[in-house]
Amino acid sequence: MTAVEADETGSVAVVGCGTLGASWAALFLAHGFDVAAYDTAPGFEEGLRASVAHHLGQLAELGPVAAGRLTVHAAIADAVSGAVFVQENAPETEAVKRAVLADLDALAAPGVIVASSTSAMLRSRIVADCATPERIVVAHPFHPPHLVPLVEIVAGNAAIAERAAAFYARLGRRPVVLLKEMPGHIANRLASALYREAVNLVAENVASVADIDAALCNGPGLRWAAMGPHMTYHLGGGAGGIRRYLDHLGPSQVRRWESLGTPDLTEAVKDAIVAGIAEEAAGRTLPELEARRDRALIDILKARTEVAGR
Amino acid sequence: MTAVEADETGSVAVVGCGTLGASWAALFLAHGFDVAAYDTAPGFEEGLRASVAHHLGQLAELGPVAAGRLTVHAAIADAVSGAVFVQENAPETEAVKRAVLADLDALAAPGVIVASSTSAMLRSRIVADCATPERIVVAHPFHPPHLVPLVEIVAGNAAIAERAAAFYARLGRRPVVLLKEMPGHIANRLASALYREAVNLVAENVASVADIDAALCNGPGLRWAAMGPHMTYHLGGGAGGIRRYLDHLGPSQVRRWESLGTPDLTEAVKDAIVAGIAEEAAGRTLPELEARRDRALIDILKARTEVAGR
Repeated sequence: MTAVEADETGSVAVVGCGTLGASWAALFLAHGFDVAAYDTAPGFEEGLRASVAHHLGQLAELGPVAAGRLTVHAAIADAVSGAVFVQENAPETEAVKRAVLADLDALAAPGVIVASSTSAMLRSRIVADCATPERIVVAHPFHPPHLVPLVEIVAGNAAIAERAAAFYARLGRRPVVLLKEMPGHIANRLASALYREAVNLVAENVASVADIDAALCNGPGLRWAAMGPHMTYHLGGGAGGIRRYLDHLGPSQVRRWESLGTPDLTEAVKDAIVAGIAEEAAGRTLPELEARRDRALIDILKARTEVAGR
Repeated sequence: MTAVEADETGSVAVVGCGTLGASWAALFLAHGFDVAAYDTAPGFEEGLRASVAHHLGQLAELGPVAAGRLTVHAAIADAVSGAVFVQENAPETEAVKRAVLADLDALAAPGVIVASSTSAMLRSRIVADCATPERIVVAHPFHPPHLVPLVEIVAGNAAIAERAAAFYARLGRRPVVLLKEMPGHIANRLASALYREAVNLVAENVASVADIDAALCNGPGLRWAAMGPHMTYHLGGGAGGIRRYLDHLGPSQVRRWESLGTPDLTEAVKDAIVAGIAEEAAGRTLPELEARRDRALIDILKARTEVAGR
């Protein structure tokens, strides 16, 4: 068995079958791949199968769902042998990642891409113990990956990046290739930058947590489901587009940057956020909120057809 | 004529009838208000009527549209006399805003709220020349306001804030009340914080402009159309919710804050953004991109029904 090619299917090894692994597994199965699952947790099969069935039901709302076969393995070697692609979702601890990736590199067939879902770690660090690090990529999804299309790819060279991107594009994902590695990749850096100010607005008591959340999802967040920030300002510059925006409104953007907060995440600020979320949740449990988020995501994904800038 | 009450309609004065005023006018008309329009530009009526007709067509896709009557006035006093609410959209220059708001305060019937659409200015500054500043509020929409629900309200007291919020809620908007004024209010501060890092990623050549945009609108932007940042992390904390998120992942959030860029908007960075947008736009003109943005917004708004946290 060798690396996955353009129209080939086969078995994808999913190594680490928590929330993230289950979501990946459903996505692979829905696109006709078999999934060979491995996790260190005893008895993980039951929870995995339940989650996968749930996710496949959601995916069926978005389009035809193929029927890959899910097998569960007690030995990592059994999951990886024969795999045409490996998706690793081990805990976000550098030592664990390094060890797991070194194992996977030793076990996977030559040329097979081993993709780490890491959100927080740099590729250069986690491949340090691998014999053939060039086939190890970061392929970071956004939760839940069976619904949210983004996959951020960091690879050792452009050819591997392109092969990994082609694989995820076949799964209906939107791969984005980083030209160099950065802590938090792209999307979580953007999210963290925004969150710092969202925390600052709580710390400064500018509005309730619920109103800060509402300001995003009824304002810029709504637009950002359709297009990114640069394109948004291209349309904010009038007939002169982004050039006019940057020349004319760039200085006010820079002044606003200078006015942004740099809050400390103190216990008092954390308490205010926790109390604000309790108010915003208004008694809805986490599973209820999660179901509503997924419902909204599915509806928005169905609605998004041809969107500017994508 | 006195201030607008819960179920009353009447005439809303729209003062300043550029892009923003036309969008507001369509929203008011669609909800059964008459609109009395005023602008200093000679012959503004033709463009205003064309834009309003276009926007009403879009609003008809989202629900039943009432038929308020649009009248156009050559004198500001004629537009404002008899108005039950005034929406001011004059140019974003402090001297202009101060003068226009002072005029409107002198002309509007007692108790009528005069709302400024200002995005960049503080309420305390622009009401400085008004005789009865307490009835002047900031009511900042997000473009285009006939589609995007957010209205950010800054008022001199809670009772006026509540009256203004009730008015916009009747129009299907989501009013958010600031407890104190801040440059950029809430949403543009969040957007600017994110944009600073989006510019930094261009300056650092981490990815193309198109890929940075794609990373947002296929990742966090998609989720933020459904819920705000605090609620997003509440669902990112597992069974422990936001408390566990902040205690467990707060430190990595803080480390990421420390790694964010503080780019200079140099000519070279601006050139890179302009070139990147040209590549992303791929020949599509601004009107084409704008039509696609509005198409996406309408489809997403139709899809969003009952969403967590709103």
